[in-house]
Amino acid sequence: MKTEIIAVGTELLLGQIANTNARFISEELAKLGIDVFWHTVVGDNPSRVKQAFRLAQTRADLIIFSGGLGPTMDDLTKETVAEVLGLEMVKDEAWEAYLEELFAKMGRSMTDNNRKQALLPKGARLLENDHGTAPGIWLEDNGKIVVLLPGPPRELEPLFRDKVVPLLPQGNCVILSRVLKVAGLGESALEEKIHDLVVEQTNPTIAPLAKYSEVHLRLTAKAESTEEAQKLLDKTEGKLLTRLGEAVFGRDEETMAMAVARLLWKRNLTFAAAESCTGGYLSHIMTNIAGSSDYFLQGQVTYSNRAKTDLLGINPVLIRDYGAVSEEVGRAMAENIRRRSAADVAVGITGVAGPTGGSDQKPVGLVFIALATPQGVSCRRFNFFGNRETIKERAVMAALNMLRLYLLNLNG
Amino acid sequence: MKTEIIAVGTELLLGQIANTNARFISEELAKLGIDVFWHTVVGDNPSRVKQAFRLAQTRADLIIFSGGLGPTMDDLTKETVAEVLGLEMVKDEAWEAYLEELFAKMGRSMTDNNRKQALLPKGARLLENDHGTAPGIWLEDNGKIVVLLPGPPRELEPLFRDKVVPLLPQGNCVILSRVLKVAGLGESALEEKIHDLVVEQTNPTIAPLAKYSEVHLRLTAKAESTEEAQKLLDKTEGKLLTRLGEAVFGRDEETMAMAVARLLWKRNLTFAAAESCTGGYLSHIMTNIAGSSDYFLQGQVTYSNRAKTDLLGINPVLIRDYGAVSEEVGRAMAENIRRRSAADVAVGITGVAGPTGGSDQKPVGLVFIALATPQGVSCRRFNFFGNRETIKERAVMAALNMLRLYLLNLNG
Repeated sequence: MKTEIIAVGTELLLGQIANTNARFISEELAKLGIDVFWHTVVGDNPSRVKQAFRLAQTRADLIIFSGGLGPTMDDLTKETVAEVLGLEMVKDEAWEAYLEELFAKMGRSMTDNNRKQALLPKGARLLENDHGTAPGIWLEDNGKIVVLLPGPPRELEPLFRDKVVPLLPQGNCVILSRVLKVAGLGESALEEKIHDLVVEQTNPTIAPLAKYSEVHLRLTAKAESTEEAQKLLDKTEGKLLTRLGEAVFGRDEETMAMAVARLLWKRNLTFAAAESCTGGYLSHIMTNIAGSSDYFLQGQVTYSNRAKTDLLGINPVLIRDYGAVSEEVGRAMAENIRRRSAADVAVGITGVAGPTGGSDQKPVGLVFIALATPQGVSCRRFNFFGNRETIKERAVMAALNMLRLYLLNLNG
Repeated sequence: MKTEIIAVGTELLLGQIANTNARFISEELAKLGIDVFWHTVVGDNPSRVKQAFRLAQTRADLIIFSGGLGPTMDDLTKETVAEVLGLEMVKDEAWEAYLEELFAKMGRSMTDNNRKQALLPKGARLLENDHGTAPGIWLEDNGKIVVLLPGPPRELEPLFRDKVVPLLPQGNCVILSRVLKVAGLGESALEEKIHDLVVEQTNPTIAPLAKYSEVHLRLTAKAESTEEAQKLLDKTEGKLLTRLGEAVFGRDEETMAMAVARLLWKRNLTFAAAESCTGGYLSHIMTNIAGSSDYFLQGQVTYSNRAKTDLLGINPVLIRDYGAVSEEVGRAMAENIRRRSAADVAVGITGVAGPTGGSDQKPVGLVFIALATPQGVSCRRFNFFGNRETIKERAVMAALNMLRLYLLNLNG
């Protein structure tokens, strides 16, 4: 089955939003093994919507529209599709009653425009929209399926997943993706380790994508069934894990912070962070995780020298002799917050986030990251590239990766 | 001039990425007053790329391709376009020499695939790509302009802005957008204030978009010149400012944190933050701004009760009698960090971010935000909706908005 997705909306052609609906629908169809051959975007213009639909009829068996189902005059997808198919519009009494109830609840009166939303092309099936006033529409015509969905993603996504997917035929093959996330290996070191697999392997394919401080390896498998595709993915994942070992920190939605949180939970350990140049970002992402109060005791954002002395008890002589950005101060930050907070493990970060404040000896991007544990304190020196936010991001991710590797290798 | 943007890439049809290139190019063309009528996405398939190009030739004067210019076998946009136009491929000696130098620098040998990137359709103009090995291509054929650009956004965006835009003719009219950002007004209160303008006004149009803790009003004006469009935008902005006053905190790229930073700079004041449920997010966004060390002294993430007592000197009796999430503790957090850090202004935040930890009396989303200033301490109680991250976000934005309104209304 060949699919074309037609998004209707002038805001897309003005570049005000990206066509994320086509991305979402395509990803869901790939899981079902249904091929998508075309995405088209057209403005709120009846003659061009007509032209797009007629073309799609010549080259697709499944045609999915998004957008143009609202109550305003600009919304004309439904009427245009009905006109091309020669269908009259009929009222869906149940949906009209539902809308009336909805408006009564909100204490608002229902206009004729709203009433328009209960009209369907004759013979169409109404797909109930639980998140808005425009229902989805399913039509079959000459062996082709035409689906109309409202544009807002929070309406379209559940509608597609819950109401459209169950009606679709299963395709001949399934395409499944999985992402493995790698940290702490330079791009070239990573390439060296897996280059042959990336080049030679075609099912699953392996596509590396470099992020700021991670590399994502997207595996995409094609098979006759979901089970078969999963097996292919598992096999390649196994190969990659053998080559990359601890450098792989997560899969799909798993973030570095979650990987660390899981290890802290598993080991039943508590954590504290003393941050200078990262300004609280490490504390922020470690407390974004539900249940973080189990492991997170405190964070200190000691931006000024006075804060380093007052809050962490850093010896002012250390700052004077080595500078606030130094291995000595980084170590003391980690050590002191660990002792003062009574946390099991603690991190200290000091560096130059830029764009100002750098010097020849201590350039923008220089960051010291110290990890204090019951076994002692270790410190690494990094030189990060990028703007201020990127340097903060890279520094926090490097700190978490140091912590992750420590926790991973703890005995017991 | 009518434009069609054709993105080539199977990864788009699999839903692995969204077509952000079409969004970017469309937005840039709107600024120039050039109409975009179609976006098309097609896979890495020569016959369908051909079909898409032939169709575009019948309905557009400016055809912009993105993607399919890389060194691999899948990359066939250039060859397909040349074939349809009946042009042979010729080598650009200068680009080949540049690539050779580039590969030599990286210590890698250049393959025949890479060499392919120096081939151009005869008569084409090469657009130098400063961020990759595939150059952009500009072709004119029968009064139509065809532009080919590499797919990665970090290559396409500068190439389009610096090399393509200067070659494009100016359109008949200019479409300009401006976003006004509003905080601290509920959606219905906002609607009441500006409903008539939103409904009646057509140039500029006013489109409200509710974000988590802000409402963005997008004004879009159409005019014969940039100056004329700016004037229309200014006029409507003036009307909106009269109605909304201090609730408007910024324009376009200006964030709430930047608005606050500007006021702190202007008043030459320093700032400190004591955070519980927001976990360092306030410190993080206030230190994302270059030059934040001028105003930011310190942040304390006092997650555990012990941290509240040890670090901020909160009386344990207060926590016992009122609970850690209480107006009393919020006020003490703000007051104590202000006194201890010697900051001019300070914020204290305590609440329940959820999803666990709520009770009937103190449900998830309950947050106390206190502001300590030389004039005293004020505290507000909020009930935020949403998941953990949303509640953190809303709490931090509400705190910054309290601080902003205080700074705005300081005398002198």
